[in-house]
Amino acid sequence: MALAIGIDLGGTGIYGALVDRMGRVLAGEERRTPVSDGPEAVIRAMAEMAETLRDRAPGPVLGIGMGVPGLLDHESGTVITSPNLFWRDIPLLGPIRGRVGLPVAMENDVRVGALGELHFGAGRPYANFLFTALGTGVGSGIVLNRQIYTGPYGTAGEFGHIPIRSGGVRCNCGSRGCLETQVSGPAVRRRALSALLRSRLAGESRLRELPPSEISARTVAEAARAGDLLARQIMTQVGTDLGLGILAYYNLMGPEAVIVGGGVALAGDLILEPARRICRERLMPGLRERVRILPAELGDEAGAVGAATLVPGFVLE
Amino acid sequence: MALAIGIDLGGTGIYGALVDRMGRVLAGEERRTPVSDGPEAVIRAMAEMAETLRDRAPGPVLGIGMGVPGLLDHESGTVITSPNLFWRDIPLLGPIRGRVGLPVAMENDVRVGALGELHFGAGRPYANFLFTALGTGVGSGIVLNRQIYTGPYGTAGEFGHIPIRSGGVRCNCGSRGCLETQVSGPAVRRRALSALLRSRLAGESRLRELPPSEISARTVAEAARAGDLLARQIMTQVGTDLGLGILAYYNLMGPEAVIVGGGVALAGDLILEPARRICRERLMPGLRERVRILPAELGDEAGAVGAATLVPGFVLE
Repeated sequence: MALAIGIDLGGTGIYGALVDRMGRVLAGEERRTPVSDGPEAVIRAMAEMAETLRDRAPGPVLGIGMGVPGLLDHESGTVITSPNLFWRDIPLLGPIRGRVGLPVAMENDVRVGALGELHFGAGRPYANFLFTALGTGVGSGIVLNRQIYTGPYGTAGEFGHIPIRSGGVRCNCGSRGCLETQVSGPAVRRRALSALLRSRLAGESRLRELPPSEISARTVAEAARAGDLLARQIMTQVGTDLGLGILAYYNLMGPEAVIVGGGVALAGDLILEPARRICRERLMPGLRERVRILPAELGDEAGAVGAATLVPGFVLE
Repeated sequence: MALAIGIDLGGTGIYGALVDRMGRVLAGEERRTPVSDGPEAVIRAMAEMAETLRDRAPGPVLGIGMGVPGLLDHESGTVITSPNLFWRDIPLLGPIRGRVGLPVAMENDVRVGALGELHFGAGRPYANFLFTALGTGVGSGIVLNRQIYTGPYGTAGEFGHIPIRSGGVRCNCGSRGCLETQVSGPAVRRRALSALLRSRLAGESRLRELPPSEISARTVAEAARAGDLLARQIMTQVGTDLGLGILAYYNLMGPEAVIVGGGVALAGDLILEPARRICRERLMPGLRERVRILPAELGDEAGAVGAATLVPGFVLE
């Protein structure tokens, strides 16, 4: 029974899993990311986690795959930049391989999420899809012919920064009107705070009972699911804007599916149905019949499970 | 000296060329498309053109490649729909092969233009680029790893229908705010007619001297090149909107280049420079340095030369 270790490195936590070829997690390990202690401490924590998981493995471990939040240089095994970790030019593959003595591989965290969905989640039936994660930012992994497409410079998949407004809100990237400014977690919060001040539905919304600091994509989604009209209106707007981005992808790449994950996607059909609607309305005949917008199937373990699939020889196709 | 025949089938004309492996046209044939006589007459005209070219060939002809304006079924060799030709479910490959007795292949006209640029034009140095043709419509061919990417359903490349306005002008496709509504030939004409009524630059514009029926992308481009301020302003707006579409493509696919052809692109840097500017302004660091927006190099022969590259064994890589 061949196994692999997947490690999901985040800005706040590290989650490691021992994964079998069915995508099942046989053992999991979690700890806080010691960001403030520097890269050396984070790398040591990851290596120790991998060793612990290997020692608990009931069969041979083929290697370690890692999902990393940042821009990576695969040739040198280096993290070029990671704003979440405050890293710049940090060698990662070499040090982990040196300490644990297993083959290692890495990919950025959203692409690793896409790989998880491809091999073990909603993407299993499809060879060509977009996976997007709506969280603090909006990232994506482009799957073409059952492979992650990274592009000639490794930059492909910045779905969150395609323009959906000609003007619009300023984005962290420096541009304006990016999809991310409309559908990320912070965008849902901003929309809700604004709606609470301005919407005629605000008076009857349960969101009014929350302190402003607790207005988030999660609490708005919960209110929407409970039938709150203001929250539902916000989610419809978010879903419609998400649909404009997906519309661009359908026109350009004509995929089999678009799979939506991340915290904002916990709203489920409350955002996916408006996205489907605008795609069906606005795509040409021949394309609109093919709209398939699905929720991600893997939850919090997606990153680690997806990372495990990076290990050479682990996935059997 | 192996040769191939490329045929560019358009709604008004058919252009055929005998092409060598350097992309040179050794002989050309042109005639009006007998659209009103029905598909049989058009197919006969194409077959006769191919036979004439083969008879003039100084070496072996490997086959016939055809660029067709429409949606194609490659398995059955059928044109599913072609609005320009008023065709629906017309077998094309079988009849041409049967009459001429050479291997045949076909692809849609814009993809064939992309292949021409890939093998013999501005795309030669690049493995991953978008070719877009700004004409009556706005089509594109997506080149990944030196191959046309058609997507799982053959629909990829509808660059003209990505949304760049959340509302905006209604498009022929049924949607609103599509790139095509802002940068196609008819869009340039519409912008010019509107500007002549409203702009404070209209009084001094030489476009006023033209009858409205002669306002077109071509005459506006000519005026712009001659220094006409109103025409330049229009081309800057067109280029900026084109840049928003290209921005979406850079974010999603991170290509090496975007190559712009078609009648509207005759304005050259008057539209390409505003497109480059908005991409450099709005892309993230790491992407913006890579912006490369180039004019197409092949002119009216692009379709036929590109079509010739469809012939199996003709292109040597």
